[in-house]
Amino acid sequence: MVVELISVGTELLLGNIVNTNAQYLSEQCASLGLSLYFQTVVGDNKERLESTIELAISRSDIVILTGGLGPTNDDITKESVANVCGLPLIMDEATKKDIEEYFKNSIYKEIPESNWKQAMIPEGAITLKNDNGTAPGLIVKKGKKTIILLPGPPNELYPMFQEKVIPYLTQSQPQVITSTTVKICGIGESQVEDRIKNLIESQENPTIAPYAKTGEVHLRITAKAVDEKEGKKLIRPVVQKLKRKFGNFIYTTKEETLEEVVVNLLKKENLTLSTAESCTGGMLGSRIVNVSGASDVYKVGYITYSNKAKRKYLDVKKETLKKYGAVSKETAREMAKGGAFKSGTDICVGITGIAGPNGATEEKPVGLVYISCFYNNHTYVNKYVFKGNREKIRQQAVTKALDTIRRCVLNETI
Amino acid sequence: MVVELISVGTELLLGNIVNTNAQYLSEQCASLGLSLYFQTVVGDNKERLESTIELAISRSDIVILTGGLGPTNDDITKESVANVCGLPLIMDEATKKDIEEYFKNSIYKEIPESNWKQAMIPEGAITLKNDNGTAPGLIVKKGKKTIILLPGPPNELYPMFQEKVIPYLTQSQPQVITSTTVKICGIGESQVEDRIKNLIESQENPTIAPYAKTGEVHLRITAKAVDEKEGKKLIRPVVQKLKRKFGNFIYTTKEETLEEVVVNLLKKENLTLSTAESCTGGMLGSRIVNVSGASDVYKVGYITYSNKAKRKYLDVKKETLKKYGAVSKETAREMAKGGAFKSGTDICVGITGIAGPNGATEEKPVGLVYISCFYNNHTYVNKYVFKGNREKIRQQAVTKALDTIRRCVLNETI
Repeated sequence: MVVELISVGTELLLGNIVNTNAQYLSEQCASLGLSLYFQTVVGDNKERLESTIELAISRSDIVILTGGLGPTNDDITKESVANVCGLPLIMDEATKKDIEEYFKNSIYKEIPESNWKQAMIPEGAITLKNDNGTAPGLIVKKGKKTIILLPGPPNELYPMFQEKVIPYLTQSQPQVITSTTVKICGIGESQVEDRIKNLIESQENPTIAPYAKTGEVHLRITAKAVDEKEGKKLIRPVVQKLKRKFGNFIYTTKEETLEEVVVNLLKKENLTLSTAESCTGGMLGSRIVNVSGASDVYKVGYITYSNKAKRKYLDVKKETLKKYGAVSKETAREMAKGGAFKSGTDICVGITGIAGPNGATEEKPVGLVYISCFYNNHTYVNKYVFKGNREKIRQQAVTKALDTIRRCVLNETI
Repeated sequence: MVVELISVGTELLLGNIVNTNAQYLSEQCASLGLSLYFQTVVGDNKERLESTIELAISRSDIVILTGGLGPTNDDITKESVANVCGLPLIMDEATKKDIEEYFKNSIYKEIPESNWKQAMIPEGAITLKNDNGTAPGLIVKKGKKTIILLPGPPNELYPMFQEKVIPYLTQSQPQVITSTTVKICGIGESQVEDRIKNLIESQENPTIAPYAKTGEVHLRITAKAVDEKEGKKLIRPVVQKLKRKFGNFIYTTKEETLEEVVVNLLKKENLTLSTAESCTGGMLGSRIVNVSGASDVYKVGYITYSNKAKRKYLDVKKETLKKYGAVSKETAREMAKGGAFKSGTDICVGITGIAGPNGATEEKPVGLVYISCFYNNHTYVNKYVFKGNREKIRQQAVTKALDTIRRCVLNETI
């Protein structure tokens, strides 16, 4: 079954709000095994909305519209669908009653006139009661095609979709979609693709799709099957193949972030952590603290952007800074070692680099970052040259630092 | 001029990511005075992508496509546009050189074969150099219609749009659009709107449009005029009116961020700063370090997520933590004071709060944050209850902390 989304609202076309409804519905449709080929956003304009509905009906089995069901004159979704389907609008007594009920305990003394418009439905439509607002959802049939109209506010849309639309859709759906994401760090997107090009091309069910994140690559494996159990059975051997190909570059095959993996690994090994950041200025600490309960392992973070602070808080030697500079292997080494000793933690990771746009020299380009890790009486240091703007360079450095902790603890060469 | 957006990417149709690019581009187009009637999302499928491009060209003057310019087989945007326009793809030597340059200092030993695909362009296209990746942007003409192809990753898309697409689009507009943004912090969006409702409604040229950012409200004043000078002349009295209405809630009317304003203010006043962060875990430091040259004023940051670290690094008393808890006015006060004394800086700002989803109690809900600021032998502390998820609460706290520094120095009550 092919489904299509139409989001109605001028505020989306003006960029006033982000279309999170489209993401929510897309994810839901994917997990129901429905194929979604198009999402369209169109404004509160009769002609353009009707042509969009007509096009969608012509190429998809199910059309889901969100927004434009409100009480005002701008709200024309229902009217447009009725018009395209050649159906008159009639008063729905049950909905009228629901609206009366809804207003009974509200702050309003009387029901605004415009709200009665919301009790009008295209003849023959199924109504979906709205427990969180006054606009009911609607299911309209046009021949074999199904048109579903849902309210725009997420707090009305989500429960209505979960409680009323999913049961309606699954009764006519033969297959479910199951997916797993294999998350990789430490190897670039095109290198990942080059290694599994044949695998991607030869797969039909499950399929493998790569997604590049900053400093990471995610491989999404998606299977269609009669139920979730069968889907997982199809996915398992593919995950095994990927594990053989990428080994410890894979940091997880579960729904968890890199920082969660790191914090959980440290918890498991009973290790404590501190951070010593220069160019990233606390961004690494911030990602670690993203993990609820990180304080069990993360003891302290030093943000030492100035040379003075590197000396005072991390015991970096004056001569080292003078001879090699703040962005150097030697300074990075002393940052991690000094941080670990000062804080008394098992591990300290240090970051020093040139995030740009200023500060570069001929030998030290923008993007040059040294990442160090003190662990088990040894300090590992690696040099990187990251691409991109200031923000992207810092994000890559932070991701690489998290991966460095992971690999140090796993006893990998980094 | 009518513009239309096409976002290309199966990850959008699967709901893996939210289409923030569409919001960004819509906002930009609106401020350039372009009319946007449709946004479409379509997957990496040749037939569907080409029919979408054809439809868009038929009804709009300018079609902007994002995504699908990567090196892999999935990436077919360029090929589809070339096909619809009847143009062959040819090797662009300048882009080829850029790609070589891009990989020169990277971690890759050799350039992946698939990346050469990115140097192929539709004959006659204008290339837009990508400073943050390997896929160039492209401008293709088909009769009077303009098709603009841009990379999908936001960190590549945004700078390319700002630096290359806006100048291209404005040169073909008979009137120039000039705009100024008045940035406000410390007062909510609806309060801002209430105060200037009449002003917004009565304005035609320039227009005033409010945009809510996390913890901030930006008012964008946009004028259409024959040249920039005339535009600025129209804008000036509106800015004056807003200044009278909002006073020091306005932190700037220039193209600068809150953290830039804070760092420059401290530089001007010859003041030094340290930070003491708990729930934000370094996010404040990271924003300050965003400002190139922040090390002149920002001496050190303490990330003290655990109680132990608060005691050890900030001299927070054991009894204070025991009696009032880590998230309290008293702890916040000692964090700022202790941080300032330990670091020897003129100012120290402290943040402690409950970012959730765990850790809340009946008296201390998720979103409760205390922000303290030591300055001039006095410690100011304020209590906030922020709304939203963990990330959003932390972002609001950081913005408020930056504003707190600004107002302390400006001798405002906070």
